[in-house]
Amino acid sequence: MLTADQLYHSPNVLAEYYRQFRVAERLLLTGHSHQAWPDVALHGMEKCWQDAATHIDDKWERAFAVAGQVKASFATLLHDHSGYYALGQNSHELVVRFLSALALRQRPRLITTDSEFHSIRRQLDRLAEEGIEIVRVPSQPLATLVARLNEQVNSKTAAVLISSVFYDSGLICPPLTELMQRCEQNGVELLIDLYHQLNVVPFDVEVQGL
Amino acid sequence: MLTADQLYHSPNVLAEYYRQFRVAERLLLTGHSHQAWPDVALHGMEKCWQDAATHIDDKWERAFAVAGQVKASFATLLHDHSGYYALGQNSHELVVRFLSALALRQRPRLITTDSEFHSIRRQLDRLAEEGIEIVRVPSQPLATLVARLNEQVNSKTAAVLISSVFYDSGLICPPLTELMQRCEQNGVELLIDLYHQLNVVPFDVEVQGL
Repeated sequence: MLTADQLYHSPNVLAEYYRQFRVAERLLLTGHSHQAWPDVALHGMEKCWQDAATHIDDKWERAFAVAGQVKASFATLLHDHSGYYALGQNSHELVVRFLSALALRQRPRLITTDSEFHSIRRQLDRLAEEGIEIVRVPSQPLATLVARLNEQVNSKTAAVLISSVFYDSGLICPPLTELMQRCEQNGVELLIDLYHQLNVVPFDVEVQGL
Repeated sequence: MLTADQLYHSPNVLAEYYRQFRVAERLLLTGHSHQAWPDVALHGMEKCWQDAATHIDDKWERAFAVAGQVKASFATLLHDHSGYYALGQNSHELVVRFLSALALRQRPRLITTDSEFHSIRRQLDRLAEEGIEIVRVPSQPLATLVARLNEQVNSKTAAVLISSVFYDSGLICPPLTELMQRCEQNGVELLIDLYHQLNVVPFDVEVQGL
């Protein structure tokens, strides 16, 4: 276990694992995909290429084994026992896959907030052009957000899509346990976008009752 | 320019550019994405990672410049003066993007063949579940294929989706000039899947009148 002193020291104890991004020489304050990547990420990419060069069409067993390790890490991080993880290149792709599975003809209504990142926002804008009803609940005040979302959920609703940390304010969404229950009672899917929370602020699937 | 003798020689003149895939030591007869990758592909990937490590959020100008070179190469290969190229991770993603732009409520009909690869086939299967009419014209006999497709194009049709080389037979589709004209006359989009043709059998956008 690292100590705070080791992290406060300059260069700190993690810096040696981020040599390529030279974090010992400069301050990088951006988050998630914009942050420094560890040197092992380059080695992993090179290993992936070498596996393809060596094994060609027999590479997939090795690729799926590594993908399995990534999924298992997410499950541990989220304290999640289900283990169902779909990996994708970006959030647009994952949102499109989710939306493509909904019965939008029978349930032509989607509920979201006015603080969603561009992946969800843009895809829902497009569905609105085709006549799907998009209900955008104001994310603030946070204290009443879950109650206001619950009021909108009905039998015509296909899904609720919401961030757990809002990208435009940095505010953390309250626990979504009651929203999950309300969705389950009405046969509504719940998508929680963890992009701005994952590996920054702890998120516990079990504690949240999800 | 390479001579046939240089290519027939063993190891042939290209083998030195494919050292990682050891093409001088073994025969690789598979095509397109399954074929040997040149060593420069690994160097390109490493360069991409190093650009991210060095320039972080200022990497994009460099990434878009390289993407521009890729697009220009496709344009040259296809003898295409338009220069409109969307790059994607895989054919599913590109097909979904194309389908998402169609006015399927006003034109709930798509025409395709019974010999399309799984990316087009699977996405159209899903749209059929939502009530979109999918017309699957038999790809054979080839001699009458364009005429049989043309008969199906009407004002309720949003698009025609067809391969230029059929993955299940290896047969080359006849020129699609007349189908393109019929589509244009009816406000119908035409998607031609070149996956099994590109860089194997020449395809000339200008000659085909596309």
